[in-house]
Amino acid sequence: MRLAVIPGDGIGPEVVTEALKVLGEVVPAAEVTRYDLGASRWHATGELLPESVLGELREHDAILLGAVGDPTVPSGILERGLLLRLRFELDHHVNLRPARLYPGVRSSLAEPGEIDMVVVREGTEGLYAGNGGLVRKDTPNEIATEVSVNTAFGVDRVVRDAFRRASERPRRHLTLVHKTNVLTHAGSLWSRVVEEVSLQHPEVTVAYQHVDATTIHMVTDPARFDVIVTDNLFGDILTDLAAAVTGGIGLAASGNLDVTGRNPSMFEPVHGSAPDIAGQGLADPTATVLSVALLLDHLGKHEAAKRIEASVAFDLATRDHSAPGATHAIGDRLAALVSSNTRTA
Amino acid sequence: MRLAVIPGDGIGPEVVTEALKVLGEVVPAAEVTRYDLGASRWHATGELLPESVLGELREHDAILLGAVGDPTVPSGILERGLLLRLRFELDHHVNLRPARLYPGVRSSLAEPGEIDMVVVREGTEGLYAGNGGLVRKDTPNEIATEVSVNTAFGVDRVVRDAFRRASERPRRHLTLVHKTNVLTHAGSLWSRVVEEVSLQHPEVTVAYQHVDATTIHMVTDPARFDVIVTDNLFGDILTDLAAAVTGGIGLAASGNLDVTGRNPSMFEPVHGSAPDIAGQGLADPTATVLSVALLLDHLGKHEAAKRIEASVAFDLATRDHSAPGATHAIGDRLAALVSSNTRTA
Ligand SMILES: CC(C)[C@H](C(=O)O)[C@@H](O)C(=O)O
Ligand SMILES: CC(C)[C@H](C(=O)O)[C@@H](O)C(=O)O
Repeated sequence: MRLAVIPGDGIGPEVVTEALKVLGEVVPAAEVTRYDLGASRWHATGELLPESVLGELREHDAILLGAVGDPTVPSGILERGLLLRLRFELDHHVNLRPARLYPGVRSSLAEPGEIDMVVVREGTEGLYAGNGGLVRKDTPNEIATEVSVNTAFGVDRVVRDAFRRASERPRRHLTLVHKTNVLTHAGSLWSRVVEEVSLQHPEVTVAYQHVDATTIHMVTDPARFDVIVTDNLFGDILTDLAAAVTGGIGLAASGNLDVTGRNPSMFEPVHGSAPDIAGQGLADPTATVLSVALLLDHLGKHEAAKRIEASVAFDLATRDHSAPGATHAIGDRLAALVSSNTRTA
Repeated sequence: MRLAVIPGDGIGPEVVTEALKVLGEVVPAAEVTRYDLGASRWHATGELLPESVLGELREHDAILLGAVGDPTVPSGILERGLLLRLRFELDHHVNLRPARLYPGVRSSLAEPGEIDMVVVREGTEGLYAGNGGLVRKDTPNEIATEVSVNTAFGVDRVVRDAFRRASERPRRHLTLVHKTNVLTHAGSLWSRVVEEVSLQHPEVTVAYQHVDATTIHMVTDPARFDVIVTDNLFGDILTDLAAAVTGGIGLAASGNLDVTGRNPSMFEPVHGSAPDIAGQGLADPTATVLSVALLLDHLGKHEAAKRIEASVAFDLATRDHSAPGATHAIGDRLAALVSSNTRTA
């Protein structure tokens, strides 16, 4: 297994170190190459993602990313120039974000119920297409536009993927989230594609919900959701909310998938670089460890993935959540659990 | 006071009846004209908002709206053709949505804290501009676009309004919510306008937060928010979430304001027409009653507004929330409270 690792900024390197520790227990032979991309490279050289590096990244089986973003870099530079550029260049059209409330984890909700959902967020279109502009900047007549671009091709492939995932889950339920009553054009396309693909999946029950109403259900009855399929921006918003009600973004994993396998998929925690707590051993590496489980699952190493997830579940059920330990201590604990699970497996 | 009332669909007429009952206690001389707009008119005549009706509506001091939307009407028709058309034709650029956790009301959050915020949502631009289209519909090469339109004029006036409101509140804090790291053009405009207007309001502290992170704080620390200013779509999403953590949309009021006073402002509950519970006396009219308080406040009748809000607060603090009573019973109770408050005032 050839793995490219982009530790990135802030707490990125810290959580990646622990995740690789855990990975080492299940795939000791993994060949890891680190790529120094992010704020410090940009400051030093002005580079965000050189073509040569992008070319090298393509030669790997998967990419593990810590976090990018730094207060010393103007907003949008690293996000658009590095993180989103990777997602777009590598055609990561399925942004997979499970949200599960593990036993032992306290939700911010008074009555969370049993939360176990997967958000399938489109990853290469919508308002993330970078299609917009400024006219008459800095005048009283300035206009700023942002265009949400949705194609039948792009919507179809992510909706198909979501149905496939729904059909493999016990509840076989899929919710399309959009805002069809206002965004009537994009909403029409998304609705028609879901209707069409649903004909091939009679085993999956389908629901529709407006994005605003979805946020209500996320905090009043999140257990209703099984698979959610939605566009890039709604997915961005809803997955942070879903993470918040399942114990926080310290636990939320994600995969940016090219499900065709043509490009390496990229796995990263949903959280950002958290510069305020960087370098202090305060970051919880669990989200990154769970992202490694998604990575292994994607590469067909289902048993190894299950072992990591089971170890995380055990740790979350038994840890003292008021004092979960330092970053490296959590990593050590998870690595030890995985190692003993591996030996007994 | 000349008031136009649009009861609308579903539970709209029921909650409006109760709200007018309460209004009658503080402004017995209010002259009320009802306008029959919504699903049934559309079914009967194909009309959504005839020019003549729009002209008549303009002659009023304010508009009270129940709810529009019905499952028998294709999604988007009533929303775009009636509700949004009213907001756009009457230049309702400030969509005002307070969210307060009243004593006695149970939040869906485990530890809500003291929530008392106002979301100032832009109401006439953004992705609601209706600027989009479909190309090659029903072919594999279909494209659907939606354009977010933001103007210096439109952003400036709503940001100014938000600062003014923040400066009149005890905490004097304003949070701009956007997604500047991805929507770099619109984000740049919004950020620059906030920075510029903030120079005229040194008494207001200013924060910025990405919309995704905002949903996290809405469920982990909503008490941090005082005034939020944001665009049309983010405001739509966040106000449903804010309502959900402050007792639900049964309590959430809103005002669609033309703050210049050139057009009548329109007041409505945040909730929709709830066709599933329509006609059964199950709807809580409180959100509409609180919308009447916003209406009175907007028309300068601050004492009357306060009396209604105080009566609602008293009722919420003392009601049996597991059995709040039928729609008309809640209306009767609130009217009686307002009446006795009025006599002792
Ligand atoms: C950092 C940012 C560009 C990114 C996004 O908006 O997708 C992040 O919020 C995420 O969800 O991965
Ligand atoms: C019904 C719909 C068009 C409307 C909106 O999106 O603004 C509603 O959700 C609201 O918040 O008032």
